[in-house]
Amino acid sequence: MKNNRVTSLFGIKYPIISGGMVWCSGWRLASAVSNAGGLGLIGAGSMHPEVLREHIQKCKAATDKPFGVNVPLMYPEIDTIMDIIVGEGVKIVFTSAGNPKTWTKKLQDHGIIVAHVVSSSKFALKCEEAGVNAVVAEGFEAGGHNGREETSTMVLIPQVRKSLSIPLIAAGGIGTGDGMLAAFALGAEGIQMGSRFALTQESSASKEFKELCIGLKEGDTMLSLKKLSPTRMIKNDFYNAVQTMEDRGASADEIRELLGRGRSKKGIFEGDLSNGELEIGQISSLIDDLPSAAKVVEDVIAEYNSKIDKLITADSKF
Amino acid sequence: MKNNRVTSLFGIKYPIISGGMVWCSGWRLASAVSNAGGLGLIGAGSMHPEVLREHIQKCKAATDKPFGVNVPLMYPEIDTIMDIIVGEGVKIVFTSAGNPKTWTKKLQDHGIIVAHVVSSSKFALKCEEAGVNAVVAEGFEAGGHNGREETSTMVLIPQVRKSLSIPLIAAGGIGTGDGMLAAFALGAEGIQMGSRFALTQESSASKEFKELCIGLKEGDTMLSLKKLSPTRMIKNDFYNAVQTMEDRGASADEIRELLGRGRSKKGIFEGDLSNGELEIGQISSLIDDLPSAAKVVEDVIAEYNSKIDKLITADSKF
Repeated sequence: MKNNRVTSLFGIKYPIISGGMVWCSGWRLASAVSNAGGLGLIGAGSMHPEVLREHIQKCKAATDKPFGVNVPLMYPEIDTIMDIIVGEGVKIVFTSAGNPKTWTKKLQDHGIIVAHVVSSSKFALKCEEAGVNAVVAEGFEAGGHNGREETSTMVLIPQVRKSLSIPLIAAGGIGTGDGMLAAFALGAEGIQMGSRFALTQESSASKEFKELCIGLKEGDTMLSLKKLSPTRMIKNDFYNAVQTMEDRGASADEIRELLGRGRSKKGIFEGDLSNGELEIGQISSLIDDLPSAAKVVEDVIAEYNSKIDKLITADSKF
Repeated sequence: MKNNRVTSLFGIKYPIISGGMVWCSGWRLASAVSNAGGLGLIGAGSMHPEVLREHIQKCKAATDKPFGVNVPLMYPEIDTIMDIIVGEGVKIVFTSAGNPKTWTKKLQDHGIIVAHVVSSSKFALKCEEAGVNAVVAEGFEAGGHNGREETSTMVLIPQVRKSLSIPLIAAGGIGTGDGMLAAFALGAEGIQMGSRFALTQESSASKEFKELCIGLKEGDTMLSLKKLSPTRMIKNDFYNAVQTMEDRGASADEIRELLGRGRSKKGIFEGDLSNGELEIGQISSLIDDLPSAAKVVEDVIAEYNSKIDKLITADSKF
C-alpha cells in the first residue's frame, strides 16, 4: 500500500502489530512478528524489570527489524522499566493504562516513537495533545483490560478517526484479513491483534491455555470485574465465582480479595484453567489453530488483499 | 452491485434495511426508506393489532416499493398480528425474539419472504434449518433488546458468515457507508440500521428523544436489565435506578417491578427523558443530525461507493 502512515512511522512492511499481552508476548513472539514484516511488541506488564531487560536483549539478537515494548503506565516500578527501555536502545514504546502526558516527551527525547492505547475518542484526543506519534483504539471485544464505556470497535474506530489527525491503529475483535479490511474501511491505518497472536506457536502462554482457547465458542468470554477494572476473560470457575459475588451485590473490596494476586499468571502461563484468570478476546471463537506468528501475518495480508480484489471484481458499487 | 442476494431477495435497489424499532418505525419511516430504494420495516412490537393494520394500509398507499413488517414472536396477540399481515398482503416479514420454526413455513405458504434476527451463529443455524430466507445478525452495540452473549458486530458477522449459506444482513453499530463497507468486508450482504433511521424526520420518536440522541457521546448508552432481557438504553435517571438496584444485588422480580409497563413508550414516544426507557444504539454518538430517511439512504450509498473508490485508487493492497 502506498502512503500507509503506520508502516512509515515504524519502518515496517505491514501495518500489523502484535499486542503487548501479559504472559503471552515475550521476545519469541515479538521477534517472530517483526521478522514476518509486522511490529512485534514485548509485553512488559507481566515482567520484572530484569526479566524485561533479558527479553529486550534476546529480541534484539533474534531480529534486526523494528520491535517495541508495551508498558502499562501504572506499573509499580515504572521508572526502572523506562530506564531499561532507554538504556537498551528500544526505539518504539506502546504505553497504556495511564496518562500519556507523563512519559511521551521523555521517551521521544531519546528518539523513541510513542503510541498510546485508548478506549475512547476523549482519551485519543488527550494522546494527540500529549504529542504521541500514534493511537491504538481498542474496542469492547478485546481480551484483558478494557474500557468502562464498552464501546465496540465498529463504533469506536470511526468515532476516534473523526477527531484524530495522527495515525490510528484499530484493536479489538480483529483476527483476520477481513477484519483488517473492515478496520481500514472504518478509518484505521493499521491493526493490533492480541488474541490471534496469543494463539500461536511463539506465544509464551501455556499449552493448556492455548488449547482451551482454540475450542472456545461465541459467548465463552465475558467482560468481568467491572467494580475493579473491567477485564474480558473466559467463563471458568474463577469467573463464575466473581459473577456469583457480583450478583449478590458484593463490594469492590470483597471482589478484590477473591481476585488476590497472580491470577492471570496462574491461568495463562501456568495453565490452571479453573482458578486462573484467563484473558482472551471475543475473536478467539473464530480461531481454531495454533500456527506460527509468521503464518498469521502472511494469512492476514493474503486475505486482506484477496478481499480487496473481490470487492473490486464483483463490481461492488451501487 | 452485481449479484447482491439481499437486493435480489427483496426486490430492492440498495441492501439497506431500516430496523423495526418500537415507537420509531411506523408507516412514514418504512415507506420513506422503501421509496428511497432500501427496505422499510414497520415495527409491530409497539402496535396493537388494529394500529398495525392501519400502518400497513397507509404504507401501501405511500409506496409501491417492497416494504416489510418486523414482528417480535413473543408478542402476546401473535396470531391476530400474523392474520393481519397475511390478510393485508404483506410480502416481507422480519421475525425476532422467538423460535423461527413456529412461523416461517406458515408465512412462506402465503408467499411471504421471511428473515429472522439473531445474535449468535448458533441461532443463525437454527434459522437456516427452519428455512428462513435471510438472517439478520445483530451485535452487542445495537440499541434496545440484545443478545446475552454480548458478541460485537465485528466478531459476530464473520462467525455467522462461516456457518451460514443463506443471505446475511449485518446490524449493530452501523450508521454510515464506511460501516456498510466494513460489514461487507466481514461477510455481510446487506445492512440493517436502527439508530440511524430512528434519528430521521420520518421516525415517529418524540422530538425530545431525537434531540437528546443527537447530542450523545460515547459511553452514554449501556446494556442494562441483564437479569430480565438485556437492553441497550441511554444512561438517564431510570437507567441509574436500575443500576443502583443491580449493584446491591436486587432480584429479577424487584427489577421487573421497577421497570413496570410502558417505559419505552414513555421515553421514546412521549419524550419523558428522565423516567422513560430510552432505547438507542452505541452508534448514536456518531450521529448529530436529523435528516430525511431518503437522505440517509443516499448518503450511506454515496459514502460506501466513495470508500470503495478510495481503497482502489490508493493502491491499498500490500
